[in-house]
Amino acid sequence: MQAGTLFTVSAPSGAGKTSLVKALVDSDSQVTVSVSHTTRPMRPGEQNGVNYHFVERESFVDMLGRDAFLEHAQVFDNFYGTSKEWVEETLAGGRDVILEIDWQGAAQVRRLLPDTVGIFILPPSQETLRERLTGRGQDDPAVIERRMSQAIDEMSHYVEADYLVINDDFQVALNELRAVVTAERQRLQRQQERHSGLLEALLRHR
Amino acid sequence: MQAGTLFTVSAPSGAGKTSLVKALVDSDSQVTVSVSHTTRPMRPGEQNGVNYHFVERESFVDMLGRDAFLEHAQVFDNFYGTSKEWVEETLAGGRDVILEIDWQGAAQVRRLLPDTVGIFILPPSQETLRERLTGRGQDDPAVIERRMSQAIDEMSHYVEADYLVINDDFQVALNELRAVVTAERQRLQRQQERHSGLLEALLRHR
Repeated sequence: MQAGTLFTVSAPSGAGKTSLVKALVDSDSQVTVSVSHTTRPMRPGEQNGVNYHFVERESFVDMLGRDAFLEHAQVFDNFYGTSKEWVEETLAGGRDVILEIDWQGAAQVRRLLPDTVGIFILPPSQETLRERLTGRGQDDPAVIERRMSQAIDEMSHYVEADYLVINDDFQVALNELRAVVTAERQRLQRQQERHSGLLEALLRHR
Repeated sequence: MQAGTLFTVSAPSGAGKTSLVKALVDSDSQVTVSVSHTTRPMRPGEQNGVNYHFVERESFVDMLGRDAFLEHAQVFDNFYGTSKEWVEETLAGGRDVILEIDWQGAAQVRRLLPDTVGIFILPPSQETLRERLTGRGQDDPAVIERRMSQAIDEMSHYVEADYLVINDDFQVALNELRAVVTAERQRLQRQQERHSGLLEALLRHR
């Protein structure tokens, strides 16, 4: 049985998901983020194997054929996917894995691995979200409104998650996210898997 | 609906439960420990309303008759019980409540309030437990063995809990206990109860 826990972290653009997950992973060596495969071209500053595993379309389609993805999606002409093998090996090695994916990806993963823990990150208000989206330099009002509308669509799926973290204050939200990951490790079933020998020895009558 | 979460914390004697719960409550104003009612006499150094609510047997029996306890137990000639009213009011006020009780009390509470979150604290080994029990000055081997046997009986009920915290290193265990309490506050249902207005406003299309 898997020794680590699989988490999906979903959020609308502008909720601070990537910064929170990065801060979590940087401070907790037991948890790691999955690096997706993609067919889109590498952008300046990106590194293969760090931001994405950049692959040719042919090799992506080949992986699809081998059922090698836990979830995948097509956005415009590009494919994105999470390698099943990598996730399974990492969990088997006892590390927790975080998938940063949208609600559709999270739903695909949950269907295959029902023990997956779903976390949704939300901004404290639409006003804050709009400020954060505007702060990215997207000052065209029509663009902002379209992104707001997409964000609201994404957020409407928060009810499918197990945990909600509201990112008002970054440090508070980080502490809450970290608590969810730490707490899930203490769940009865997880502890029974990890500490079977210890638990057996504890209950031994002499 | 209750806004706080009810936790039971159970452990064998010597696992460090009381110190862990005290450290948790001292560092987190959102969580409080229930003070039990008891008919046993006050001991030197104890304070009414702090260690216990010390009541006469007649008044305890009267409370029993009014179904005023969430759980109660008789140990030798003394009664112990947890006030239902106090717990419900504290939870309704948005604070989390911890009940430090044995597995039997935890089972009673869970039957009445199925949303209760059960935490079990365990020592890392029988050897550590024996040292801790001996360290209390109980040097009579027969006494130690009887307490070890009672501890093993109590520990055999860990499977009824939702979370296991293994108290090997105190700070690690405290961090894990704190994470469980913090994480439970981020659960979908709890967040929906607490932030219904915020969530509604977030999803509003203009």
